[in-house]
Amino acid sequence: MEAAITTLITQFKTCAGKDGSSSTLSKDEFHNLVTSQLPNFVKNASDSAAIDQLMVSLDENNDGELTFLEFWQLIGKLASKQGGFSQ
Amino acid sequence: MEAAITTLITQFKTCAGKDGSSSTLSKDEFHNLVTSQLPNFVKNASDSAAIDQLMVSLDENNDGELTFLEFWQLIGKLASKQGGFSQ
Repeated sequence: MEAAITTLITQFKTCAGKDGSSSTLSKDEFHNLVTSQLPNFVKNASDSAAIDQLMVSLDENNDGELTFLEFWQLIGKLASKQGGFSQ
Repeated sequence: MEAAITTLITQFKTCAGKDGSSSTLSKDEFHNLVTSQLPNFVKNASDSAAIDQLMVSLDENNDGELTFLEFWQLIGKLASKQGGFSQ
């Protein structure tokens, strides 16, 4: 489990490090992460408007950037759905 | 990233399936998961009282069982700490 967690951290950092703050995801970085890393788990991963909307719903403080913990809530929901757990 | 998420789901299910409800972690299952899967990430993983206390802090509805999403909050905090993100 620790190796899987480390993988998620590393891949988040790789995507987050592309522009601006290296510890948060900008809109472009989030699009890139979803299409490259979560193409099957995120519904409509190729629909740019849907991804914009998804980002807004995750961005709790509405600063236009996703922190790791804001992003983590998405992964939890996706995992819960994939795993067949009740939401 | 999808493979890592699947690993976390599978390992949660393996631990959760040992007794009682197969979709939630009992106290024993949580102890087993922490010592077997998160020995380095959880502080005091071998201290039974500390793990009891950790479980109480995660069990939002106080039913003595951890759902996947309750457990996910722990993993998020551990990941955030490991990744050096501000809490």
